[in-house]
Amino acid sequence: MTDKFMSMKNLTFTLFSRGGKYPVATPDYLNDHTPKTTDMVFKAAFDLGKKVLHPMFEEMDRNPPQLAGNSVHVHEGVRPMLETLGEDGWIAALFPEKWEGENMPSSLLLCINFIFAAANYSASVYAGLTMGAGKLILSFGSETLQNTYLPPMLAGKWQGTMALTEPAAGTSLGDLCTEAIPFDGQLEGGQSEIGQPAGGYKIFGEKIFISAGDHDGVDNVVHLMLARIKGAPPGVKGISLFLVPKFRPDAKGNLVDNDVIVTQVFHKLGYRGAPIVGLRLGEKENCIGYLVGKEHQGLSYMFQMMNNARLEVGMGATSIATAAYHCALAYTRTRCQGRKITAPKGSAPIPIIGHPDVRRMLLFQRAVSEGALALILQCGMYEDILAKDPGQADCHLLLELLTPVAKTYPSEMGILSTSTAIQCFGGYGYCDDFPVEQHFRDMRIHTIHEGTTGIQAMDLLGRKLTMENGRALFLLKQEMEETMASAGHHPSLTGMVQSLAKGMGMLEKTTLGLGNVAMEKGPDAYLADASLFLEMFGILVIAWQWLTMAEAVLVAQKKEGLKKKDTLFYKGKLHVAQYFFSYELPKIQGLARTLEGSDQMTLAVPGDCFTD
Amino acid sequence: MTDKFMSMKNLTFTLFSRGGKYPVATPDYLNDHTPKTTDMVFKAAFDLGKKVLHPMFEEMDRNPPQLAGNSVHVHEGVRPMLETLGEDGWIAALFPEKWEGENMPSSLLLCINFIFAAANYSASVYAGLTMGAGKLILSFGSETLQNTYLPPMLAGKWQGTMALTEPAAGTSLGDLCTEAIPFDGQLEGGQSEIGQPAGGYKIFGEKIFISAGDHDGVDNVVHLMLARIKGAPPGVKGISLFLVPKFRPDAKGNLVDNDVIVTQVFHKLGYRGAPIVGLRLGEKENCIGYLVGKEHQGLSYMFQMMNNARLEVGMGATSIATAAYHCALAYTRTRCQGRKITAPKGSAPIPIIGHPDVRRMLLFQRAVSEGALALILQCGMYEDILAKDPGQADCHLLLELLTPVAKTYPSEMGILSTSTAIQCFGGYGYCDDFPVEQHFRDMRIHTIHEGTTGIQAMDLLGRKLTMENGRALFLLKQEMEETMASAGHHPSLTGMVQSLAKGMGMLEKTTLGLGNVAMEKGPDAYLADASLFLEMFGILVIAWQWLTMAEAVLVAQKKEGLKKKDTLFYKGKLHVAQYFFSYELPKIQGLARTLEGSDQMTLAVPGDCFTD
Repeated sequence: MTDKFMSMKNLTFTLFSRGGKYPVATPDYLNDHTPKTTDMVFKAAFDLGKKVLHPMFEEMDRNPPQLAGNSVHVHEGVRPMLETLGEDGWIAALFPEKWEGENMPSSLLLCINFIFAAANYSASVYAGLTMGAGKLILSFGSETLQNTYLPPMLAGKWQGTMALTEPAAGTSLGDLCTEAIPFDGQLEGGQSEIGQPAGGYKIFGEKIFISAGDHDGVDNVVHLMLARIKGAPPGVKGISLFLVPKFRPDAKGNLVDNDVIVTQVFHKLGYRGAPIVGLRLGEKENCIGYLVGKEHQGLSYMFQMMNNARLEVGMGATSIATAAYHCALAYTRTRCQGRKITAPKGSAPIPIIGHPDVRRMLLFQRAVSEGALALILQCGMYEDILAKDPGQADCHLLLELLTPVAKTYPSEMGILSTSTAIQCFGGYGYCDDFPVEQHFRDMRIHTIHEGTTGIQAMDLLGRKLTMENGRALFLLKQEMEETMASAGHHPSLTGMVQSLAKGMGMLEKTTLGLGNVAMEKGPDAYLADASLFLEMFGILVIAWQWLTMAEAVLVAQKKEGLKKKDTLFYKGKLHVAQYFFSYELPKIQGLARTLEGSDQMTLAVPGDCFTD
Repeated sequence: MTDKFMSMKNLTFTLFSRGGKYPVATPDYLNDHTPKTTDMVFKAAFDLGKKVLHPMFEEMDRNPPQLAGNSVHVHEGVRPMLETLGEDGWIAALFPEKWEGENMPSSLLLCINFIFAAANYSASVYAGLTMGAGKLILSFGSETLQNTYLPPMLAGKWQGTMALTEPAAGTSLGDLCTEAIPFDGQLEGGQSEIGQPAGGYKIFGEKIFISAGDHDGVDNVVHLMLARIKGAPPGVKGISLFLVPKFRPDAKGNLVDNDVIVTQVFHKLGYRGAPIVGLRLGEKENCIGYLVGKEHQGLSYMFQMMNNARLEVGMGATSIATAAYHCALAYTRTRCQGRKITAPKGSAPIPIIGHPDVRRMLLFQRAVSEGALALILQCGMYEDILAKDPGQADCHLLLELLTPVAKTYPSEMGILSTSTAIQCFGGYGYCDDFPVEQHFRDMRIHTIHEGTTGIQAMDLLGRKLTMENGRALFLLKQEMEETMASAGHHPSLTGMVQSLAKGMGMLEKTTLGLGNVAMEKGPDAYLADASLFLEMFGILVIAWQWLTMAEAVLVAQKKEGLKKKDTLFYKGKLHVAQYFFSYELPKIQGLARTLEGSDQMTLAVPGDCFTD
């Protein structure tokens, strides 16, 4: 079997070669990272992925986390991995120099995440979660909290988490009821607490589905937790953000138990190398949390985080689909079975990549995973521009508009893409002798965590499309027109340009139609088919991304002195672009028809009609 | 959680209520089974499913088969289950009275299979495989073979299998190389062998992926095995069918080891309750096989079997999707989360079935599973008509045409349907606390076993569509027009009738276009997009089936004295039909566009373009 899990050539091509309204990734936006230094960083990440993360890909799945006392036992490779990621500076990479970080721009971080997650998705999330939690502390935490918690977290010794979900509050976060009671007195045992003027808050509640919410690969776990301060307003406006450690350091730096009980480890379909746990807080009335930022601002802080987390989910799905594709590619190139229909009798079986249907399946996987990668890096570029110049309101709107797509397209299509990888293997794909069945299982979480597809769809249609009177969609259209104008200079791309223009026209018509529904029938009807709208919108956006790549190929092909493998890469890339336009883009026709003609029938079906 | 895994009302409605060119299932075609006696049979099957198969659904998955010596240890419930299925006559049901069977017609057997498989797919395959193998022995085996093997098989004491696949011959059966050498002398040990004039054949070879290929829930395993008699012509024309037992009965009826070695048990993504094994034959030159029927006719015998086996695979997929739907339905009716967008502030969370997107997901699952059930029962009806009157050539053609659809539509769409069931649960769906993740895993085999989707697609487009100058498609069109004509009398169905007619027009245009491709570019080009054609064809066929159901509802609604739950059932059924026409049927537009405009690009992509 192959141990190839991603293509470095495709990654750097996608990051650096494309044009568009906004400049391609340039050192200016990449904090002085050049293609050359980037290359070194990516190679180092790949090396780590190959040597540390990838070898335990299957083992971590076969030996999932186990509850042992009040701790979760994980694969023994997790601790040295996190130490290495800490020592080598990967966890601190996005942080400023003060924290021994490198101000790594978002685009490059997403690429590094892509490499690690393709090597071993479950292994990659540990450090990713710590980075996310650390970023929240950096952005909103007090200096004392930063000084106490960031160093061990960035060193890979303490785990960071995001603790949002509760048994009765998943999608509906406004219903969460973990409580924080201000606490002024002395703590039992008499330790003086740091980081909070008045002893902090006593936390009471229950959290579930907390990724890396506890494990023995670290010495402490630091939860960035949403809770409601006693007396806070109901709903989302009364939610605050707290830092709740598993062990709290006392004045002398000793770690004191903070009354965080691990209630369960969830047994999951996939993504088994990472522990997802349930937590009970304050059973002994001795769980202290420290307010991060201001009271009642918790959700908005978390959402600053969440937008990037959604890109990371999309990237995780993209990575898994990519790794599965490389397995399928290697297999179909070596597995011999059958012949061409027109082959002479008695000829030997051929490698199955020679069969058109197998090639279709490979093209489909590339169309999905490489298209998704391009979109997420496009979003990363907007993030980097905004990081340099937060006043770029247009970039902000585009990022807001595209985030639900960048989260959902890879996640939804990734299910089909990894399923197609299995299909390339035939019966062997269904067996755990090959890793594709694991990729299929690892993939399935992504349409759920960090906001389900239904939530992303309501976000896109209900919030993002209506922002500033629809300016975001207007801007996207501008971006796409820019691409179409410049791609249109290449005669071989005019077919794609026309198809995309036609598709944009259909989308505008659909959007107008939905606007009328909103006016005539109200918001419930407007949003009834939001998931289909997101699907249609996603296909169009990915088609645009494929056009940017096709154009980049035509530019690159004119360079002199191309090596043979570059020539083949560019040729293949154009085939995949063509595949997307011929096989994927036409799907919007049916979706447009449904969005036009559904009469929002899902609203009309009474619930009791489902009984029989 | 619910322990409901299927709807009896929907099953009998689908079997008995529909019209069409051929008569609905009537006692005439059902060997005198009336709706009333059928009802009793189904209730008995349901009872068995609920009490015996369903309770071990999760246990069998969590404790998969293990190799122990030269035997495979399976769940301890398998043996008593098979004994009960034998004693109560389920395994013999399809056999004639001579074998204490009931001449159970195909439609009803498919329904019984539906009930058992919905209760526990893995558990249901054991008896199903024995029935299939037994049917082969009945059709083609000598009287001695029948008398020796059928009684213990039909009693559930011996397992039957179909042993086709080899390590280098899966899809490409013509390449199989298990060898059978005629054997005239005395056997080692001196037993005189029964059932064959000249001692039988010595078998040498290796088989893989043999379902229920060995287990300790029975006393013997009887393989119906494809092999090549020494000196036979190459390819599919040199394949013969053999009966190869694990233990062969000697003259005294003692069971003698027959040199069949279990080499491995495959570890699978799902479908874990049933052992899929590898076998080595003749390691000690002491594996005897008995020719079944004539030399070199093996593949045609097996395919007589295989067509029905493909319907059974489609039915298995339908069952799993149905069971997953019922889990999702129960959950969404009780799980409270979120509110309507227009709900007043402070109102309590509602059951999530109240959210349009959740209803859409439930409607989708019903649209798939109930549509698939209807199609498979339509095929069962053709089988029953043919069983009574093999001269009904039109029925034969229709059955041939629809079999690849009846196998593939439920299997491909079932992946999406069970995935949607997971989505209804949110994060809980990804955990093994609920059974939907298992249904998702159990489902994934169906696009692979008994011929992959790619093979079904080539069968449909390459073989079935071209039979007798396309007469099968002509007949199908007639069937559909009959339905449209009678459904058109109901004003509320005219929209559906028009959509279906339009869709048929698109299909005809597409088919003509492909005919031109065949003439201009040859068979490789004609078949390049066969999978897409099968997808398009499948959606149209299922739309037709939904129209038959919608019409049946309108007829039934006119009856007097309907109970409230009947009224609700009919109302719900119409909603699902409308859903199919609004949300699923439009997908053919994109498919038609691709089939028209793809230029068979998958043929043109060189294999080395996939390297980078």
